[in-house]
Amino acid sequence: MTELGEPGQFSAYMVEEAARVELALERAVERLDSSLKADVAAAVRHGVMGGGKRLRPILCVSAYGACGGSRTEGAYDLGASLEMIHAYSLMHDDLPCMDDAELRRGRPTTHRTHGEAITIRAGAVLIPAAALQALYACRHLGCGPEQTRAVVQELMSAAGAGGMVGGQWLDLLGEGRSLGAAELDGLHRRKTGALLAASLTMGALAAGAEDRVAEALQSYGRAVGLAFQIADDILDATESAATLGKNPSDADLGKSTYVSLYGLDEAKRRAAEQVARALDELGRSGVDAPHLEALARYVVAREK
Amino acid sequence: MTELGEPGQFSAYMVEEAARVELALERAVERLDSSLKADVAAAVRHGVMGGGKRLRPILCVSAYGACGGSRTEGAYDLGASLEMIHAYSLMHDDLPCMDDAELRRGRPTTHRTHGEAITIRAGAVLIPAAALQALYACRHLGCGPEQTRAVVQELMSAAGAGGMVGGQWLDLLGEGRSLGAAELDGLHRRKTGALLAASLTMGALAAGAEDRVAEALQSYGRAVGLAFQIADDILDATESAATLGKNPSDADLGKSTYVSLYGLDEAKRRAAEQVARALDELGRSGVDAPHLEALARYVVAREK
Repeated sequence: MTELGEPGQFSAYMVEEAARVELALERAVERLDSSLKADVAAAVRHGVMGGGKRLRPILCVSAYGACGGSRTEGAYDLGASLEMIHAYSLMHDDLPCMDDAELRRGRPTTHRTHGEAITIRAGAVLIPAAALQALYACRHLGCGPEQTRAVVQELMSAAGAGGMVGGQWLDLLGEGRSLGAAELDGLHRRKTGALLAASLTMGALAAGAEDRVAEALQSYGRAVGLAFQIADDILDATESAATLGKNPSDADLGKSTYVSLYGLDEAKRRAAEQVARALDELGRSGVDAPHLEALARYVVAREK
Repeated sequence: MTELGEPGQFSAYMVEEAARVELALERAVERLDSSLKADVAAAVRHGVMGGGKRLRPILCVSAYGACGGSRTEGAYDLGASLEMIHAYSLMHDDLPCMDDAELRRGRPTTHRTHGEAITIRAGAVLIPAAALQALYACRHLGCGPEQTRAVVQELMSAAGAGGMVGGQWLDLLGEGRSLGAAELDGLHRRKTGALLAASLTMGALAAGAEDRVAEALQSYGRAVGLAFQIADDILDATESAATLGKNPSDADLGKSTYVSLYGLDEAKRRAAEQVARALDELGRSGVDAPHLEALARYVVAREK
């Protein structure tokens, strides 16, 4: 593991961590391959292996390590389950009847290359596959059955009605009309925040952390999630689609964003406020976690 | 519980059981309601509460009872988790880019009344919701954590790559070209059979049945599933869309069916063969289960 300290070292850490997540995802996709028809397996691979920062698995592995977990290899497998849910949500979000996006991370979206029907199936199959992946990872992490139950409950809650999908709905509804500040916070607390917070909680639970610690890390995750979303809105407003590799932008879709609601300066202030809150929560958790500290700063400092 | 014996009594039993499943589903949908936006909650309700035989929950409750389970109320909650997965699969199957069905059980399909985007979301949200529903039911059934883990693993396996979705893919591929006999068996073993078999296994696991018993009931479920599918193909070929309340028919879609492959008489013979196999497996399980015996006969004798 790369030591931290200077900004360049943290970038190296993120690249190294993402590469290890990539390996865990490759293993997960390979296990799926054999039980899916070739077309849907290819769409799953396109959606899951499409690059990205792998922030959720990295947060999960960091929380696991910070809480004293020692079976690092299995923690990446657990992290992969979060990224599978994340990939499903992007695949469905990009569909013609949703955001109708052509580009994601600089590549054509899954439905553009694999068709709509296959993308709906491939996205949906990633949900039970993620649950099974979490069960698999827990076995390898030596989690007891009660821990395992809690981990799966956390993942499925974040993936479902109480989490992402609730928020995505508000999202579609938000197109074409302005959301209020409280609505926008509520939207992102669920859309992005639920899965980011679950990343921390799952890592902590798998390491056998005390409830008190898991809860503080979850609060850290919620704050990081909100900071991440505000930073996303800022990038969306200030960078070109070519730089972001994403098309259309949220502004093009007429969605309310932190920038459209508060202006650029206030949005930046609010992002910094959430980072400070995340660091407070981290302090409250009592764990020694330099990576989580650096990650909180990274989400608003990143370039895309 | 209605006593069996004559055909009319079995029909009364099925109606009574379906009504109790309906109550459990109503409770499940109500719990979901509060965390979903109104539009998607309405689509979930449309998809889940759309009537139907409720065969999977009834099989689950029967297996639970046959294996000595005594907390019947919670067994209906467990059964509801299976029906939620079944509802998701129908909602997505009926989409314009899949079967483009207008009618299901005599009513407009969910995407016809709630739109495509909402139906994709509502279908997908039912998958994690079903996992959480199974966790909830297991708690109420007093299952230990190891039992709970096994139940959830069973449900997610059937819902995912190894089960329904694998088969659905073969299904779409089958349109427009003829499948061979082995391919058709393989398709239906996964498409219908996986969830039907899981219904039995989950009921048995939740009741704490021995592996030997759970496995025999699972084999019973696979045979019943195949018999059910052949009977479906026979109904599809011999009844009008108006009677079935389903449009388009599989024949309209150019899909291979047991009737198109074997002809009506041979299809009927094969259905009867699977019923006989199911009854053999039931005998092998050693449980006293008159309802499961009657259910095996019912799937090929039903009118739609």
